[in-house]
Amino acid sequence: MYKKKGIEIENGDIIVITEKIVSKSEGRLIKIDDIKPSKKALEIAKICKKDPRIIELILRESSEILFVTESFILVKTKHGFICANAGIDESNIEHGYVKLLPENPDESAKKIRKRIEELTGKKVGVLIIDSMGRPFRHGSVGTSIGSSGLRCLYDRRGHRDIYDKILRSTIVCISDNISGIPNLIFGEANERIPACIIRGLGEYLGEGSVKEILRKEETDLCLRLIKEYKKEKGLEYIIFRI
Amino acid sequence: MYKKKGIEIENGDIIVITEKIVSKSEGRLIKIDDIKPSKKALEIAKICKKDPRIIELILRESSEILFVTESFILVKTKHGFICANAGIDESNIEHGYVKLLPENPDESAKKIRKRIEELTGKKVGVLIIDSMGRPFRHGSVGTSIGSSGLRCLYDRRGHRDIYDKILRSTIVCISDNISGIPNLIFGEANERIPACIIRGLGEYLGEGSVKEILRKEETDLCLRLIKEYKKEKGLEYIIFRI
Repeated sequence: MYKKKGIEIENGDIIVITEKIVSKSEGRLIKIDDIKPSKKALEIAKICKKDPRIIELILRESSEILFVTESFILVKTKHGFICANAGIDESNIEHGYVKLLPENPDESAKKIRKRIEELTGKKVGVLIIDSMGRPFRHGSVGTSIGSSGLRCLYDRRGHRDIYDKILRSTIVCISDNISGIPNLIFGEANERIPACIIRGLGEYLGEGSVKEILRKEETDLCLRLIKEYKKEKGLEYIIFRI
Repeated sequence: MYKKKGIEIENGDIIVITEKIVSKSEGRLIKIDDIKPSKKALEIAKICKKDPRIIELILRESSEILFVTESFILVKTKHGFICANAGIDESNIEHGYVKLLPENPDESAKKIRKRIEELTGKKVGVLIIDSMGRPFRHGSVGTSIGSSGLRCLYDRRGHRDIYDKILRSTIVCISDNISGIPNLIFGEANERIPACIIRGLGEYLGEGSVKEILRKEETDLCLRLIKEYKKEKGLEYIIFRI
């Protein structure tokens, strides 16, 4: 990893951008004082210690609430991401405002890629990433939310190993694999690094979108279990005390 | 990313190694013919279309079975990893054998780090990674299973953003963030690249182990739900048809 100013973009570069700067540039900032919490938001705020107005925004951005805890809400967003608080947060946003995720991050990536290609004449991939937590493992990791000009999944089924055996189940997530090191470089506090170039992985340029990564429900066993449990108990969401 | 032979190791380098070559070098290969499946393995093999002897090995390496599907078994391994098939697989292993994960991957990383430091006189971090699937998102990603000389988690709570606001909940998983790009470089088939150097992230060298990343049960909401559901239904594992 090298910090360098005035670097030239080359063919095959993957430009990784933090979602925060994309959301900001798309005007996805909401003034907290403008939000009137609904009854449901006020009800959830009794469990989750967040501003009910922010809970209201989380509900508006979500298609389903999964878990409610004292510190966060796990939802499925309207884009289909399963993440905490619908990706809404206040860090590095001016006081009194919060930021929503881009409305269509694959589309945002496409616009940025086209503009970079126009300006430079080079063929690049663009990846928009956010920090997300995950089940089973502690700590957040860089996670792709929008992509353009990049293959997001790499189906290795049918490929042969060094003993000529055929791989039967391996599908690799290219875009999430690429998102990790940029996540460290961007940081979370006052680093002020919103974008970086990953060079040397040009072989992964191609067609793809982050939508492909979102599991279809039949293969999403944790989500199936959550839904099954909610249905059996007649719950709208599952409350956890941590 | 550059492929280069005869590269010198420098202070601050992070040496990333695929678990497969570590497991092989530690003799974690098992001859399939030597395994006699138990009654439970035979029972699970009626659902999961795998060799009952391999299922037997998966059971032996696990402390708990979570999900059984037609193509894989999700378990908690004795190390505490929640992963498919206890990390046991056949790819790039000679015919008739399968490979278990290293017995203590943090310890394996420590031995390798000490030896590299002895041979080179340089201060390095060592990370052992595997490919793992995950809930909610399709495709496998590089995942750290053993680490030495590297901070695995970076607690950003208390740090300030560009508006001087204090971060309240962000903890970053350094080691999983670093594992992604090497996972792409190593590949899954016949690439024959078992290790790489990540240079430029020397600021993350320090004390740490992958054990810290494994969620404590109280914060592991998906695991709590799985356990709760199993308990209520009196199940040893949850069967899913995909």
